[in-house]
Amino acid sequence: MGFIKKLNSNIKKTGSLLCIGLDPVRGRMPAGVSVSEFLQNIISATSDIACCYKPNIAFFEAMGEQGIQILKEVMEAVPKSTPLIIDAKRGDIGSTAEAYVSAVFDDLRADAVTINPYMGYDSCEPFIKHKDKGVIILCRTSNPGSGDFQELFVEYGGSKIPLYEVVAKKASEWNKYGNIGLVIGATYPLEIAKIRKQHPKMLFLVPGTGTQGGIIKEAIENGVDLEGKGIIINSSRQILYASQGADYAEKAREAALSLKEEINKYRKG
Amino acid sequence: MGFIKKLNSNIKKTGSLLCIGLDPVRGRMPAGVSVSEFLQNIISATSDIACCYKPNIAFFEAMGEQGIQILKEVMEAVPKSTPLIIDAKRGDIGSTAEAYVSAVFDDLRADAVTINPYMGYDSCEPFIKHKDKGVIILCRTSNPGSGDFQELFVEYGGSKIPLYEVVAKKASEWNKYGNIGLVIGATYPLEIAKIRKQHPKMLFLVPGTGTQGGIIKEAIENGVDLEGKGIIINSSRQILYASQGADYAEKAREAALSLKEEINKYRKG
Repeated sequence: MGFIKKLNSNIKKTGSLLCIGLDPVRGRMPAGVSVSEFLQNIISATSDIACCYKPNIAFFEAMGEQGIQILKEVMEAVPKSTPLIIDAKRGDIGSTAEAYVSAVFDDLRADAVTINPYMGYDSCEPFIKHKDKGVIILCRTSNPGSGDFQELFVEYGGSKIPLYEVVAKKASEWNKYGNIGLVIGATYPLEIAKIRKQHPKMLFLVPGTGTQGGIIKEAIENGVDLEGKGIIINSSRQILYASQGADYAEKAREAALSLKEEINKYRKG
Repeated sequence: MGFIKKLNSNIKKTGSLLCIGLDPVRGRMPAGVSVSEFLQNIISATSDIACCYKPNIAFFEAMGEQGIQILKEVMEAVPKSTPLIIDAKRGDIGSTAEAYVSAVFDDLRADAVTINPYMGYDSCEPFIKHKDKGVIILCRTSNPGSGDFQELFVEYGGSKIPLYEVVAKKASEWNKYGNIGLVIGATYPLEIAKIRKQHPKMLFLVPGTGTQGGIIKEAIENGVDLEGKGIIINSSRQILYASQGADYAEKAREAALSLKEEINKYRKG
């Protein structure tokens, strides 16, 4: 089953648009628990609430050669019906992109990956051509520096529009298999609304609520599609580090449940 | 010693501006040789000709959990006086960029890394603040699709310039420690000339000669600084796969030597 279909099926099953980010940071985890055990317990406690999980590979790479082994153990703990997005933000020339494809789709067996568009189509195509895999392209990212380049006005097709809008347009042109999504930060709700209007059916992965300050109400009201989906809200730290005590999994569940309900409050369709 | 100093010192020692890219592809290597042995033999055969080595991490990630172990073994084989650039093209929000910094600078102990600027300053700063490390930012990449976004005209500082030029300007503003370089493809020699004029002292890492079609003469004549350096020419496949026979290391040495000499023919200073 393709990524988008698997995601929609799990959104229906869980009644949730919450994507849980798996970003292990040793200093923030309870003492005496291994990274693998910690994340597996988080997954057990939340898998009926999360429409998908999104491990950010940076945190596993920081653990050295053990990291990828741990990531694989953690991914094994995710129910088969729940899609897994590897947040990797990769981008390289075609032949090298193929190596990243092997790493992410063949070796890790992820359902989807995030990629960086700066190098253009031939750096994205090796991912996109895997029709059953999701490819989520950085568009308007949640961080403060995203404006440095993404909001610069660009001459494109006879008008002047911000660079992130060009990225969305190109992504839409490249989307012949319907497997492309966009990363748009919750910190930019007006941009969410604008891109949704231009691309009524494209999937949005929305990070940046919680610690980064994005507001769920605005993200959902501006980003949900006509069927009450087409958007997933990522939360990592707010859930993973809800408690540093022995009750971390329980508190993670509570935090996830409360986020799921808050999201659904503003969801129509 | 900082990366730029180490690089310049090794450029002097080897008399070479040749950066050898370590991009292992199983199907192209001689039969019966392990990736680690293959690359270690390439390094032994070329370390007096290469000013630096640049493993592209994608090819190691494609090998799964063994990949990082192999990468570390290979990096150990590089003489201590030769800088190592990890070609990773990373980019993520600040807290995640810190995890990539741990992976690349602490765990792998690279001297420098390539990064992607699309997410802006706070995604680059965690790398840049390591004054002794090199941070080489994608500017005008060598691949055909690089024009999709990089050559779009942008309103910046009262004039209209291509996006890659804005990236170079920003990188220059961020370069308070003198540890930033730019990736500019040999396939765009006029852009090399333009960016060199605007940034007389910045280091250029130039891929795209050989298989990709960039011409060494043009890259060097347009990119070399007033001291006959400031530019390194990367070659990967042309050297690594010069022969698929038992003489692969010898042939790699011949190919590297011939590239070094070709580069030096056009080098002044």
